[in-house]
Amino acid sequence: MDKLIYFDNNATTKAAPEVVEAMMPYFSDEYANPSSMYSFAKKAALAVKEARGQIKDFLNAASENEIFFTSSGSESANMAIRGVLNSNRNKRHIITSKVEHPCVLNLYQQLEKEGYKVDLIGVNAKGELDLAELKEKISFDTAIVSIMYANNETGVIFPVKEISEIIKSKNPETKFFADAVQAAGKIPVDVQSSGVDLLSVSGHKFHAPKGIGVLYVNPRTLITPLVIGGHQERGKRAGTENVPYIAGIGKAAQLAVDNLKYEAEEVKRLRDKLEANILKNTFNSRLNTGITNRVPNTTNIGFEYIEGELILLHLSDLGICASSGSACTSGSLEPSHVLRAMNVPFTSIHGSIRFSLSKYNTEKEVDYVIDKMPGIIEKLTGISPYQDELEALRKLKGN
Amino acid sequence: MDKLIYFDNNATTKAAPEVVEAMMPYFSDEYANPSSMYSFAKKAALAVKEARGQIKDFLNAASENEIFFTSSGSESANMAIRGVLNSNRNKRHIITSKVEHPCVLNLYQQLEKEGYKVDLIGVNAKGELDLAELKEKISFDTAIVSIMYANNETGVIFPVKEISEIIKSKNPETKFFADAVQAAGKIPVDVQSSGVDLLSVSGHKFHAPKGIGVLYVNPRTLITPLVIGGHQERGKRAGTENVPYIAGIGKAAQLAVDNLKYEAEEVKRLRDKLEANILKNTFNSRLNTGITNRVPNTTNIGFEYIEGELILLHLSDLGICASSGSACTSGSLEPSHVLRAMNVPFTSIHGSIRFSLSKYNTEKEVDYVIDKMPGIIEKLTGISPYQDELEALRKLKGN
Repeated sequence: MDKLIYFDNNATTKAAPEVVEAMMPYFSDEYANPSSMYSFAKKAALAVKEARGQIKDFLNAASENEIFFTSSGSESANMAIRGVLNSNRNKRHIITSKVEHPCVLNLYQQLEKEGYKVDLIGVNAKGELDLAELKEKISFDTAIVSIMYANNETGVIFPVKEISEIIKSKNPETKFFADAVQAAGKIPVDVQSSGVDLLSVSGHKFHAPKGIGVLYVNPRTLITPLVIGGHQERGKRAGTENVPYIAGIGKAAQLAVDNLKYEAEEVKRLRDKLEANILKNTFNSRLNTGITNRVPNTTNIGFEYIEGELILLHLSDLGICASSGSACTSGSLEPSHVLRAMNVPFTSIHGSIRFSLSKYNTEKEVDYVIDKMPGIIEKLTGISPYQDELEALRKLKGN
Repeated sequence: MDKLIYFDNNATTKAAPEVVEAMMPYFSDEYANPSSMYSFAKKAALAVKEARGQIKDFLNAASENEIFFTSSGSESANMAIRGVLNSNRNKRHIITSKVEHPCVLNLYQQLEKEGYKVDLIGVNAKGELDLAELKEKISFDTAIVSIMYANNETGVIFPVKEISEIIKSKNPETKFFADAVQAAGKIPVDVQSSGVDLLSVSGHKFHAPKGIGVLYVNPRTLITPLVIGGHQERGKRAGTENVPYIAGIGKAAQLAVDNLKYEAEEVKRLRDKLEANILKNTFNSRLNTGITNRVPNTTNIGFEYIEGELILLHLSDLGICASSGSACTSGSLEPSHVLRAMNVPFTSIHGSIRFSLSKYNTEKEVDYVIDKMPGIIEKLTGISPYQDELEALRKLKGN
């Protein structure tokens, strides 16, 4: 291939050309501060209003007033969690899952230092949440439950509606925050039918640029602002509105809605083809999740007794981008906390690779990766220090 | 004029074409997450590194490690102030000025509710800080002094170096945060010679887009992060880096350095011409500041006994954008807290207009506004309910 094959769309995505086009007028032409009172500011203010409507439709919110623009999924999560906790300082208990994004887990580590009690709910070998444990842990003192809508590393979808019902049946005052950063754009996200109180979204995961996020907050949920100052975003998030990116994420949301069928069918078909063929052609591979209950674009495959980072380097040399663990935290070489929570065998965790596709990927790209993977794996198993174990595995698999 | 005359550059600015050009490669081509380990991420990571160097030079920081990218001046201020206070929870006293940006003042109102003691230093009729009062208020318990580098409404420049020396002479442990949002790009900002500990900048005030800011923190100053999560920005600010805007603010900083001489000479000449002619041609006008000690682009003029909002509407009808009070907070109709702190007469505060120019403004535009202002003021004085007072003033001025 003479061009890049980008199979790391859970890390970030290409901004859609339509999104860039939607942003362009607001850099150097309609550049007014949308809060200004002169006519020149009208188009900028309208762009923000239109985008808020597009996000409302994207998430099926009841009102545009429930939509707050932020600078990232991380900011949205911090704003949601701190916002709820600071609004009711009497409740000191938090529940989350062992497989949340590091952003959320790091924040909870900090909150533990500040005196909050944090319970981490486990998952099974398929990466599915232990709902009985969740139910048991919810108490009168539980301020917030924070469970992701879909996992970034495995693509596993959590039963958000069921989680919501469990929470409200045990304590109607407990707030439910769903981190939908990895779900939005891949599967339908509906804040009303799912019963969430707060929900976060990150633009750059669905073809808007990096640097724009959304927090949905239902009207029954009080939050304090994280960034205090001006009256923007109904007093909940200070700072002059990022008009170009707001217009961009609005457009990206609209495109994402239109693309959901394609995602569910065609992106899924390509992902399934990639996955099935890699599993078939490499004797020491295993799917780290179940087949069902996943977003359509993601597969997480473990290659036993070899190093994932080496696989990535070989892929990178061929112009193929993929990821091991959570790309947002690569830099740290710790084994994936998600796969550990799933009890993926130690021999496989270090050799686990995530491929995450988008609508921009093609069959030709998938075929190319299918073609190249066996050679890479063969080469790396050849230099693995675990030759006896690999030989035993080869015999077991009948290869 | 058939085109817009934008004299509201303290509210926001047009993104420079060179800035937009610098951002473009990172939307849909070099769109990798800069933390990713494959080769494709190298250009994105390099762009962030280069921009950090450009900001370092812009502020004359000692090291790139002192530069943190944020999403706005507001976020930078929240991060600076909360960051310092949370790093040393024993110190409970804060000093700021009566004329800070609403962002900072609103945050301090919240901190007062949380138990901090906040002292507000006054200014004189020229908008200059009361340094004796500042010196007197600093105590062993003072955690942070937050004084702006230049005021957004009046353009008055504060003696940052002198303030810094006063603070350190009274309590070397007290941290000094300078909000340089309205200074950066207009006058040289030097974090080393000025002796600040923390300093904030907002890209959209110097021709980068809205939605990108910087916080400078010197190595002797500990801060906790505001947005907790991933390891970006050396663990101080989570969220995938906004590569396009980071590249953009880097370029804008470089352009701003190159433009400082033009700003000091040509922009100042145009501002002075505008100001002198408006003052000369309208009998009920007064300059709300002194002549000196101001950023070169700003003038704040009061028109007695008429409504500023009406002046703005008439200007807007002619395609001229200006502002009354702080444009970031228009929406609220409260009279300017800055002009009140300066004891500007009540009869003048409500009719005060800020014109703020940029390098994109022309002599032709200035001449047009000079030509149009007397007619607008004449018309509005004609419908003012204060005819007796206006008549007395007219006689006094000999008009």
